[in-house]
Amino acid sequence: MSLVRVHNFTISLDGFGTGEGLSLDAPFGHAGERLHEWMFATRWWRERTGEPGGNGGVDDAFARQFMPGIGAEIMGSGKFGYPGWHENPDWKGWWGPNPPFHTPTFIATQHTRPSIEMEGGTTFHFLNASPAEVLAAARKAAGDQDIRIGGGVRLLRDFLSARLIDHAHIVVSPILLSRGQRLWDGLEGLEQDYATESIASPSGVTHLTLTRRNQTG
Amino acid sequence: MSLVRVHNFTISLDGFGTGEGLSLDAPFGHAGERLHEWMFATRWWRERTGEPGGNGGVDDAFARQFMPGIGAEIMGSGKFGYPGWHENPDWKGWWGPNPPFHTPTFIATQHTRPSIEMEGGTTFHFLNASPAEVLAAARKAAGDQDIRIGGGVRLLRDFLSARLIDHAHIVVSPILLSRGQRLWDGLEGLEQDYATESIASPSGVTHLTLTRRNQTG
Repeated sequence: MSLVRVHNFTISLDGFGTGEGLSLDAPFGHAGERLHEWMFATRWWRERTGEPGGNGGVDDAFARQFMPGIGAEIMGSGKFGYPGWHENPDWKGWWGPNPPFHTPTFIATQHTRPSIEMEGGTTFHFLNASPAEVLAAARKAAGDQDIRIGGGVRLLRDFLSARLIDHAHIVVSPILLSRGQRLWDGLEGLEQDYATESIASPSGVTHLTLTRRNQTG
Repeated sequence: MSLVRVHNFTISLDGFGTGEGLSLDAPFGHAGERLHEWMFATRWWRERTGEPGGNGGVDDAFARQFMPGIGAEIMGSGKFGYPGWHENPDWKGWWGPNPPFHTPTFIATQHTRPSIEMEGGTTFHFLNASPAEVLAAARKAAGDQDIRIGGGVRLLRDFLSARLIDHAHIVVSPILLSRGQRLWDGLEGLEQDYATESIASPSGVTHLTLTRRNQTG
């Protein structure tokens, strides 16, 4: 059975996966791009953006697991667009004509619309359904490949809460945001169902891996 | 000038330094002793409690910095006793006749009482005063030695907020408590004044060190 995976999802030291004041001009609110600086500095990211250089250490080793073996992505309304995107009929996500998913991509949202076929293999499908139902649709599309859970915070929390995730790579960035959406809220005792590992990087971030115990996959 | 230090202060992955439901029978509430298991497993702790064995790795290296060079401790009402301890005239803290501080120990509390001299060099002094005022009293008592900030959560947060701490060793334990007192609340942007380092231990905890920039000491 294919696995349900999370990669490169970054939170602040105080647990916020996004800041306050999200808008078209500020996708992460007052957090800005600070949570993801570790990723922009990797060799993997530079390759994707056509820049030379980048770190080739542990940050890179984790970051580049984003793509291999993934056959579908699931994201929430909060990742797909700014608050109110559903009132914009032309909104096709943040990523331009060729989004970095290159697979069927399922968006869990109350505001459904017809599927949108983008360049490079990404097709956006909009589903108003439970996490388990969206996962079933994504599994079908992914074949024997894995499914990536992309976020935002609320969607990831819902999937963790339902124990639908097999492997999660969470990155803790050493900044304090104080405001926004907290990842860990309502997940008391998660460690009973997930084995955790912690790996500090010289860049200052800490990589956490959560691996579900008793995986059937 | 002597330094103001924090050692072995442990929080959950979601930032709680203590649980919910604190009482005489449950000093850390529903968290129980889970936050501090990493410490009980160190060679340092075993030496203190007269047990053989214990881990001698990175957890031990951090843990045993608790005592050397410390001339006074500051703690809050929330560390000294259970909620309501001030109504018990015989309360002398959790630690029995010979507390593990062995120095003058200043308790910041609205409920002052006469100083209590314990065995082994610990004397409890009770002050209803601001963090800076309590620190001034502790500095005087410590001479040229350092001052340890012992907690609880609120006191540590107040001292961090006032930038009165030079060096903090915070341990993140990979459990989710969901309820209790959060350390990082209200400390947005702390990283601008503190350099952080993160060190993962094979035991599963992560050691964070916060070192104040532009120290005068």
